[in-house]
Amino acid sequence: MAKNLAQKLIDSHLVSGSLEPGSPIELKIDQTLTQDATGTMVMLEFEALGLPRVKTELSAQYVDHNLLQTDFKNADDHLFLQSACRKFGVWFSRPGNGVSHPVHMSCFGIPGKTLLGSDSHTCAAGSMGMLAIGAGGLQVAMAMAGVPFALKMPKILGVKLEGKLPPWVSAKDIILEMLRRQTVKGGVNKIVEYYGPGLATLTAMDRHVIANMGQEMGATTSVFPADEAVRAFLTQQQREGDFVELRADEGAGYDEEDSIDLSALEPLIACPSSPDKVVPVREVAGRAIYQSYIGSSANPGLRDFAIPARIVAGRHVNDNVSFDINPTSRQLLEEISRSGDLARLLEAGARLHQTGCGGCIGMGQAPASGRISLRTVPRNFPGRSGTKEDQVYLCSPEVATASALRGEITDPRDLDMDYPTFEEPGQLPDMRPLLQPPQEIPVAVELVKGPNIQPLPEFEKLPQVLRGPLLLKAGDNVSTDEILPAGAEILPLRSNIPAISRYAFSRVDEDFYQRAMDLSGDCFVVGGENYGQGSSREHAAISPRYLGVRCVIARSMARIHRRNLVNFGVLPLLFDDAEDYDRLEQDSVLELDDPIGQLAPGKLVELKINSAGDTIKLRHDLSEAEIETIRAGGLINEAREKHLADGK
Amino acid sequence: MAKNLAQKLIDSHLVSGSLEPGSPIELKIDQTLTQDATGTMVMLEFEALGLPRVKTELSAQYVDHNLLQTDFKNADDHLFLQSACRKFGVWFSRPGNGVSHPVHMSCFGIPGKTLLGSDSHTCAAGSMGMLAIGAGGLQVAMAMAGVPFALKMPKILGVKLEGKLPPWVSAKDIILEMLRRQTVKGGVNKIVEYYGPGLATLTAMDRHVIANMGQEMGATTSVFPADEAVRAFLTQQQREGDFVELRADEGAGYDEEDSIDLSALEPLIACPSSPDKVVPVREVAGRAIYQSYIGSSANPGLRDFAIPARIVAGRHVNDNVSFDINPTSRQLLEEISRSGDLARLLEAGARLHQTGCGGCIGMGQAPASGRISLRTVPRNFPGRSGTKEDQVYLCSPEVATASALRGEITDPRDLDMDYPTFEEPGQLPDMRPLLQPPQEIPVAVELVKGPNIQPLPEFEKLPQVLRGPLLLKAGDNVSTDEILPAGAEILPLRSNIPAISRYAFSRVDEDFYQRAMDLSGDCFVVGGENYGQGSSREHAAISPRYLGVRCVIARSMARIHRRNLVNFGVLPLLFDDAEDYDRLEQDSVLELDDPIGQLAPGKLVELKINSAGDTIKLRHDLSEAEIETIRAGGLINEAREKHLADGK
Repeated sequence: MAKNLAQKLIDSHLVSGSLEPGSPIELKIDQTLTQDATGTMVMLEFEALGLPRVKTELSAQYVDHNLLQTDFKNADDHLFLQSACRKFGVWFSRPGNGVSHPVHMSCFGIPGKTLLGSDSHTCAAGSMGMLAIGAGGLQVAMAMAGVPFALKMPKILGVKLEGKLPPWVSAKDIILEMLRRQTVKGGVNKIVEYYGPGLATLTAMDRHVIANMGQEMGATTSVFPADEAVRAFLTQQQREGDFVELRADEGAGYDEEDSIDLSALEPLIACPSSPDKVVPVREVAGRAIYQSYIGSSANPGLRDFAIPARIVAGRHVNDNVSFDINPTSRQLLEEISRSGDLARLLEAGARLHQTGCGGCIGMGQAPASGRISLRTVPRNFPGRSGTKEDQVYLCSPEVATASALRGEITDPRDLDMDYPTFEEPGQLPDMRPLLQPPQEIPVAVELVKGPNIQPLPEFEKLPQVLRGPLLLKAGDNVSTDEILPAGAEILPLRSNIPAISRYAFSRVDEDFYQRAMDLSGDCFVVGGENYGQGSSREHAAISPRYLGVRCVIARSMARIHRRNLVNFGVLPLLFDDAEDYDRLEQDSVLELDDPIGQLAPGKLVELKINSAGDTIKLRHDLSEAEIETIRAGGLINEAREKHLADGK
Repeated sequence: MAKNLAQKLIDSHLVSGSLEPGSPIELKIDQTLTQDATGTMVMLEFEALGLPRVKTELSAQYVDHNLLQTDFKNADDHLFLQSACRKFGVWFSRPGNGVSHPVHMSCFGIPGKTLLGSDSHTCAAGSMGMLAIGAGGLQVAMAMAGVPFALKMPKILGVKLEGKLPPWVSAKDIILEMLRRQTVKGGVNKIVEYYGPGLATLTAMDRHVIANMGQEMGATTSVFPADEAVRAFLTQQQREGDFVELRADEGAGYDEEDSIDLSALEPLIACPSSPDKVVPVREVAGRAIYQSYIGSSANPGLRDFAIPARIVAGRHVNDNVSFDINPTSRQLLEEISRSGDLARLLEAGARLHQTGCGGCIGMGQAPASGRISLRTVPRNFPGRSGTKEDQVYLCSPEVATASALRGEITDPRDLDMDYPTFEEPGQLPDMRPLLQPPQEIPVAVELVKGPNIQPLPEFEKLPQVLRGPLLLKAGDNVSTDEILPAGAEILPLRSNIPAISRYAFSRVDEDFYQRAMDLSGDCFVVGGENYGQGSSREHAAISPRYLGVRCVIARSMARIHRRNLVNFGVLPLLFDDAEDYDRLEQDSVLELDDPIGQLAPGKLVELKINSAGDTIKLRHDLSEAEIETIRAGGLINEAREKHLADGK
């Protein structure tokens, strides 16, 4: 039977299961990617598994998030990660090399391979015909240990691209159009596969823009064929030998279909504070801005910096605008330095920041109170910029730059100039010599653990009767940025669960931590639709668990976060009747009798509302294996039980 | 009578007084410089003075310190400063333009002019024949209002430079040699004037290195003649017309004399944690390092980046070293980008940071716990890097780079290579078009004050009997970094006295704030020698005052801090017998009867030690004018009284 590309990628890595949408499958993982904000926990978890060396074809650790180093904590984390890489056979990418996703693609991406990463934007590598999936850290640690990755077979949404983008419209507008159509929930349990004649005009890095922000639709991942554009990219990276042609079989179909006429697109912008609040730029043009931000894994390509440089060439940005340039990689910074584009940006008044994730993850560059920030980044969840009640808009580099010149939101077609041209260089400097490779012969390496690097707390199994207050009732689309924020103050605590847990839910409920500490016992959290969207950070599961949250009930849940809850023994349940959400009130005492016993696949779970003397019905979508994990009190406990059972 | 250069500069700006060392003088101030960490307070103070516009020839405000923007506070401060510049007729240098001292020198420095700056390293402009002095913010605000700057006529220390630096030895080694000889106290109440044939081999930026760190000897300032090197510098900056030749009169003498044979110098390094703990690099060679840091106002020149780039060209820095490059100005970054030096650094593994003061002021780049950091910055006071118990060494770019290659402290002469060459470019891009000039016609401008920008608290006069506990007894050489730390967490609070005061003395005594809050009354602080050395931050006077400190008693005091105490009505007294320091114990209750009445010039002051039923004698070195300021309860109260007396 003719298969689409996503099916082919899955089929070639299938350890168990079938391609039937919704059925449980297990995939062999070829490569893993970790970054520093999630990676310290991954390495602690891998250490706990007790293996001498990773079992993947390739694992790579990047340092791109926690780069501000306002005290010893980040620097200590970097040393810990470097030592863990030396010990466990992992490539180490030092601070300054750049954002994991484009660097991984440049150094290690191979069409047809699977990649699991402890960063939700790992999916970006789908741009070069990989099956690349973001996951919680513990699952990446398991993949490093050779354990297949389990998920439900997603539906495949085929999106046919036709035509050619008009001037001043670029890849970012394609994914913003997708978000406009699909919303932040439209991709849940789907792989988005792009195909069609429109692809010919998109480079591999253009596709990276689209695949990266597929995450913002909740998609499992996005895939693009490995075609001439991918060959050109690998040639540019001095890795032509790694090219493998890969595309959907002739006549293959999709579970769902959509199409975009590229020639009909116009500059788009996502308004505060959700990536799917997308409107044409002209609808909001004229609003004064404080900041225009270029960079991040959502616009990581050379052209995303060269086009802005050529727009501002010979002009000055508006006096009132901070024009923040965040290079995505060492290679890119070298190249724009050589090409003169960096000088063009600087002469125009740009501020150059260090290479890495920077303000996209709230590591600096927070906007002023009440002012508008335009960013080429993937997310504008409330407060993610570091400023409360921020006004962050997401847009293309063209829109950000035109607005920087004018000092207000501007459709770049309204600039009085021709669209600048940019030609991709045939070859770029190889970045791999500045990554530290795994040592061929393993040597005794001591893990370097600074005082902030604390072991993962021990977690108990669920009790026979789970009883406790509903400690927090949250609304729809609560992101992991709201469950456990990032930013310069909190990110350095990622390797210290007791310390970071003080910030759990602080963005939505300042008293949560204190209530949890006062309670010092089991409790529940309730969410609306798409609970736990956004970043893959497992701390958004670990910290609530550390504070006593044993069960989360929502109308629907984002894939990675739901799995992170399971990994740490927190029961993820769904309202069978979405209306029942309204029947639960904060501080109500809730009760689940024999929670594990109630978990048979397909069976409903009965929740008692003590205060009302009432019950409501809950669903779950846990696989047998996941129920087993919950029963054990989380994946680490489960792995230990297995070791014991194996007599180890 | 033949005058030396320092005397000529003072004489040409003398409003009152004579050139007799120690006699009170007042100087006309031509230019002022403010940076953002001190400038918000200066602008609030200038606003309080009620003038429509500055009265200097030129005032410039730079944004170079608080660039991390981890939340709204720094960004709000930048907007406030921009609005204040528009309102008061001040040049505004946006974030990304660079460190105030080299940028001011490039854009506005004119030989023969006086410059007062709210940054202790303002003295760097002495490199081009200016009389440039660092001062507390309030005094800079007064200078902006046209009030002459009062000080005691310093002694002039003439330092004759002879010979020529050997390869691998550079300007930094000259000032480290001075610090080795003079210690951090040797320059107190002195101006250091450099002259002699050795000058011919030093560019204006080399001299900037030396003049800048003259501050670390406690000197009032340093001066160099305006000779051909200064003409070449101004020509390079496209400002040849601003050149004025200026040098000591033939046969002029000095109050004190010293000389350095440049050809006899070798690479030097200041060990933790004081700039005067200077030893030859070879004495400490071989110690493993974590970090090698290039940049700051202490090594701001093109050659300070180009030489490192040419040392590492074609090599990689050691895997264990973070090689942090901090460009000092937009112009410099553009130039190293054009010249290929930036690419050389990046290819070698360097991390490029944003243009500005960065880690020198603890704004990021903190080293890992217990690891060694080599820095080209001017200061290594304990904890200033952002890491407690840090191990910061100060050295030249040559030493920092050689050590980055080897991974351990290395004398660069031990590298197996020739000393790279560097030729200064004849012309560099003019930076002034990217500074925002004062508006010709004043317009109504609203000051933009974000929620963190709080008015200065009101301060009472001294009581008739000053009685209170000795709340803190500190040791020798306590710097303003220890009295009120900088760093990424604390700097953003500079425009909010109640908030920043929580950190007063926190580096030396964690409980100080709580004790002061518990006391909620008047108290004393005692220090040893050279109390209040380092940064000019007036917050180190305001915060203790806010917490109730009414009198500081020390063996000796650093000039700027002593004056900041006066400005905010805190009485600075000195032990008449230095041994009496040992007679005071923390928590003793101290008493001054009629403190103002006891303050006649030359008279001793009697301090009662209540617990011991004993008294000790204290000196003061307050001028009549300063006594008047203390009497009024500080300079702002005094200015208000004058307004009232003038019937305004």
